[in-house]
This record gives sequence, C-alpha cells and structure tokens, in this order.
Amino acid sequence: MQRAAPQQFDRVLSSMCTKPHPAAREAAERFLATNPGDPATYQAVAAQEEDALASLGEITGLDEPHGYIASGGTEANIQAIRAARNLVRDDNPNVVAPESIHFSFQKAADVLGVELRIVPVDGDYRADTEAVREAVDDHTILVAGVAGTTEFGRVDPIPELTDIAHDAGALMHVDAAWGGFILPFTDHEWSFAHAPVDSMTIDPHKYGQAVVPAGGLLFRNKEVLDALAVDTPYLESASQASLTGTRSGAGVASAAAAMRELWPDGYRETYERQQANANWFYNELVARGYDAVEPELPLVAARLPEPEFDSLRDLGWRISRTASGELRVVCMPHVTRESLRAFLADLDDIARGPARN
Amino acid sequence: MQRAAPQQFDRVLSSMCTKPHPAAREAAERFLATNPGDPATYQAVAAQEEDALASLGEITGLDEPHGYIASGGTEANIQAIRAARNLVRDDNPNVVAPESIHFSFQKAADVLGVELRIVPVDGDYRADTEAVREAVDDHTILVAGVAGTTEFGRVDPIPELTDIAHDAGALMHVDAAWGGFILPFTDHEWSFAHAPVDSMTIDPHKYGQAVVPAGGLLFRNKEVLDALAVDTPYLESASQASLTGTRSGAGVASAAAAMRELWPDGYRETYERQQANANWFYNELVARGYDAVEPELPLVAARLPEPEFDSLRDLGWRISRTASGELRVVCMPHVTRESLRAFLADLDDIARGPARN
Repeated sequence: MQRAAPQQFDRVLSSMCTKPHPAAREAAERFLATNPGDPATYQAVAAQEEDALASLGEITGLDEPHGYIASGGTEANIQAIRAARNLVRDDNPNVVAPESIHFSFQKAADVLGVELRIVPVDGDYRADTEAVREAVDDHTILVAGVAGTTEFGRVDPIPELTDIAHDAGALMHVDAAWGGFILPFTDHEWSFAHAPVDSMTIDPHKYGQAVVPAGGLLFRNKEVLDALAVDTPYLESASQASLTGTRSGAGVASAAAAMRELWPDGYRETYERQQANANWFYNELVARGYDAVEPELPLVAARLPEPEFDSLRDLGWRISRTASGELRVVCMPHVTRESLRAFLADLDDIARGPARN
Repeated sequence: MQRAAPQQFDRVLSSMCTKPHPAAREAAERFLATNPGDPATYQAVAAQEEDALASLGEITGLDEPHGYIASGGTEANIQAIRAARNLVRDDNPNVVAPESIHFSFQKAADVLGVELRIVPVDGDYRADTEAVREAVDDHTILVAGVAGTTEFGRVDPIPELTDIAHDAGALMHVDAAWGGFILPFTDHEWSFAHAPVDSMTIDPHKYGQAVVPAGGLLFRNKEVLDALAVDTPYLESASQASLTGTRSGAGVASAAAAMRELWPDGYRETYERQQANANWFYNELVARGYDAVEPELPLVAARLPEPEFDSLRDLGWRISRTASGELRVVCMPHVTRESLRAFLADLDDIARGPARN
C-alpha cells in the first residue's frame, strides 16, 4: 500500500528546498543505512562522496576540489569561517559580509566567537564594495559574498570582493548554497574559475535536487580544509574535518546521483524553465501595480499589503517575507506555471475584496 | 528492479550505526522531501518531531522535554556546551569531562573556544569523581559524563557527577548517544529521573534503530535551549535553536516511527538479545586466553595481537580499536550470534597460523 506523501509541494512558494529528482531519491533509499563519517567501514558511500565532490568541482570551476558533503549550507558556512579562524589564529578575528548574507553567519559568529561585521548593500541589493573595503582590517580573517542571495536572488561582485579580501590578507568565501546549480548557465562571475576564491558553499539539496541533507563545502587549498581536522580515535579512519560526526549516506549518495543525472543539461533546462517562470511572474505582478524586484535568478520579491499576504497564507500558500517585508517567491524546480497562475488568481480574488451575494 | 544493498552489515562489528528498523526506513522514505528546519512550511514533519521528543522524554525520564532532533551526537554535544557557554558568558570557560568522553568534545572545544579539561577514569573505565571534583573551578560551565562509553560501554556515576557540577555552579550533561536506548532496561542510574541532570544526548540513529541522521538533544529547562536561539528572517518561523539550518525530515520521521514501534518492548528484546551475545562473546574470548573487558552493556573490548587484528581486517571484518589498542566489538542490533561465531572461527584459523598442505 502506497501511503500519501506527507508533503504537498504545489503551494510551497518560498522554500529553498524542493522535491528531489527520482534518481536522487532512489540513491538515498539505497544508502539510508550508511555513514560517510566512518569511510573505512562504509566504503561504498565513501566512493559516492568522491564522485559528488568531483562533480561539484566541475560545476564550480575547481580542478582539484577539497571538501566534503555537509549537512547543509549552515554547516558549510560555519566551517568555512572555522577553517579561516583556525588557520590564522588571530586574538580578535572578524568576518566581513554584506547585509544580504544568510542568517547562518549570525549563528556561525555566535558559535565560533568571531565578530561579524555586516556592511550595507548597494541600490540593487549587492554588496557595496566600498563599504567592504572600509570594514576590513588586520584582524579580518574572511570576507564573504553571496552568489544568489536568499531574499532577492542577487550575485555579489565576487572578483572585486576577492581582491579586497586578499589585499587584507583574508580568505574569500562565496555562499552559493542556492545559486550554485543555476549560475553556470548565466553570465555572472561567481565561481573558482572567475576569481581566486578560497572556499564555497554549494548545496546539492537546494537547486541540485538531491535529498536533504546534502550541503557542499569546497576549498581551493587542502591546507584550509586540514585546519578543520580533529583526531578520531577508535574509528578505522584517523581524522575528521566535518562538523558533524555520523553523516547521512542518503544525502551523499543522492547528491552524487542527482549530479550524474542532471549536470549539465538537466540543470540547464530547469534553470531556463524557472527563470522564464520568474520573469513571467514578475511581469504579472508589475502589470497588477505591485512594486516588485526584477529577477536576475529565479526568485521574485514584491511588496504586498499585509492583509493580502495573510489571506494567501490562510488559503494554504506556504509563503514567507524578506526582513524588509517583501513577499519572496522562489521558483524552485517543483514550482509550476500553473501553480503561479493559481496563486495570482487567489491574489486577485483577495485584492477585489469579499464577493457579494 | 531491486538493486543490491550498498552496505552489507554482517561483517560490521565496530560501528555504532546499524540497519534501521523497517518502520523507520518506511517513514524516512515518506519524509525524504521535508525540512523540519522550516516547521511552518513543513508542518507534517514538525508534528513528527514533537512526537519524537515526547518519546525521548519518556525514555529518559523527563516529563516536559525541551530540545530537538539533531544531526547526531556530535551536534548534540556541541550544542549542550554552546548553550551552557551562552547562558553563563564566562570570559574563560571550561568543561570538565572524563578521558572516556567522545572525541566530539574535542571538536566542540575547538569550535566553541572553550577549554576542555580531561580527567582520568578509574580502574573500571568510569569517570573518577575525585579527579572531576579537583578539576572543576569557578569557570566551569559544564561537567559531562557518559552513559555508555564508546570504547568500553561503561556508565559514569551520573548522580555524583551531577552533585559536583551543581556544587560548582555548572550544568550537568550526560552523553547517552549510544546507551540511551538500552540503559532503561538495566539498573544503572543515568537519566533525568535518577539525578537533576540538565541536558542529554541520545541518538535515535544508534541503538534507537532510526535512519541517519537522527540525534537527540534534550534539556530539562527551556531557558537553556533558548540560549541557542538565533533569529531567522525570511522563514515562516521566527527563530532556530539547531546548529544546522535545513534539517533531515527523513531522520526526524524515522526516529518518531522507530520509537513508536519499539519502545519499550522492542528495545528491551533487542537489548536482552545483544547483551546475551556480548556476554557469550566475552566468555569465548576469555576461554581462548584473550585479555577481555567484561561487558556491562553490549560492547566487548579485548586485547588482540596486531597481526591477528590486521588479518581479520583483511578477511573483510569491519573492526576498529580503542585508543589504547583493544579490539572493540559493538553488539548493535544487526550483529548476530552466527556472525560472532564466524568471526571467532576466522580468529582461531589465524591464531593457529597458516594451514599446511
């Protein structure tokens, strides 16, 4: 007997997770009982992780990627900062990042005891390079930029930020957790190939269509990864760089499977379809007089009066807002034109007010 | 077409992971595409997490458990220390733990920037309470004890350690990651019911027979959990206490399902069978003249000459050693008497030396 799926995705419009690809789901189910945190015991899944890393290197322009499949973007971001902190060993370290940075940086700062210096974005929601330049100092261990921001889908000027970081003797980190699987099909300069970036977060379980948990953490240089290693007595392997101990073999195997299946053509097709959906949705909102932010990646933000937002939630739409209050619709692979049409129809009904008998 | 399982468990003798229970696997497969890190969007899995927490409370003697399903024991241990650190805000905080503590405490100390004071164990591998008493001081934020050590399966004197912790104004943490699902069927004093313990790690994905990743972190008081909260702009929910952001719905749902299925009778039966296996295996080793540590929980450690150990590895046995060199065999639910017999037969063959033609 097939039971109903516990999660209907047709009304989920603001999540950065999505329905996994069938090949990813199949691999996850086969590897549910494995632990890549103990690679000498669980050898089949260790091979899957090498495969996944090689694919991530190809996608991000890194010939010899060093890193691992993490539990998600939060772990990857925490670990990039931890590696920089451990490598530099400054008494009073700081990290400089734009205000568009993911909230996992606040978590990382708390966890790791580093100062987080948040600087403004420019008029188009991108890191203001002058503000970053002013914020860095001798104690800056890492500068972070975002390639596909959570709230507006913007790409920071990664090459310029990398120059600023390196001029200050800091490492450069790119958070491409969401954007990494769509940016290869755009003209943006975001990857290891576009600038001497030191580390990157790129999550297979977001636009990569793997199952949760499958984040990705990549380093250009092995010594930075090695700054994370902790000895592991009693395991068959000798040390461990990940933040967690036991890890999900399902996530690792499904990441490898999704990338084998979808890179590059499947990801390109998904990107093109969802970018078209985002552009269409933006135009529909603008035509209705809403103040919307033109999408550069498949994410649309728009000002909606609070009563309308709340009514849409009451109708079962799973939507959320930016910190500044805009509705944000993330055109993940599961989001269809039909679903966006239904959403707009509900919005129109609400905006017209209660129907008269 | 059913493909072969990627992991054969019949020769895995030193892992603390195991084959998940069928009910746990089924739940994991149904919830693969959910994210309990975003509970307002993914409501079905949020209900599963409440169910899992209630079961963990029952198992550990806590009427109103505060906590969450973590990625595993490492995250839970890091977070218990982080909560204590955030609550106390000492300039130079330290944590006191016996040398039998899991290596995740070393990781936590590095990540969180707290001093880890490791104290000796007594002649039976348990925390030496006098050594703990001498190590605590005004800067001690947490004392940790283990209920089911990784290397020898021992239970520290939790009530005494709790007294010492509280006398010093520190919190008391119990790491029952491995032992938590078998200790309820023993006479050990280890739980929230036996002492005013403040926090506990107990992993459904170890002896709880859930799929990876499913760790458990429990607090007696809500204010300690709240010391972990970070604001979450743009999610539908307002704050997040977990270390990771996106989390595995599969892990959460499978933990809930495993506990519904197995608590208490299924866990009791498994414990009794595996304790009998451990006792039998210990006696067999002793009868052969090996120096073995009598098992208190289903874990046997024994001195084995290195060439014998290496030959067993070469035969495909997935075994590992303690830091002091003993073979450790963990009688997880997948370990059968037949498998232990086959292991002993191989050991006997090796000990006899190469067969003559």
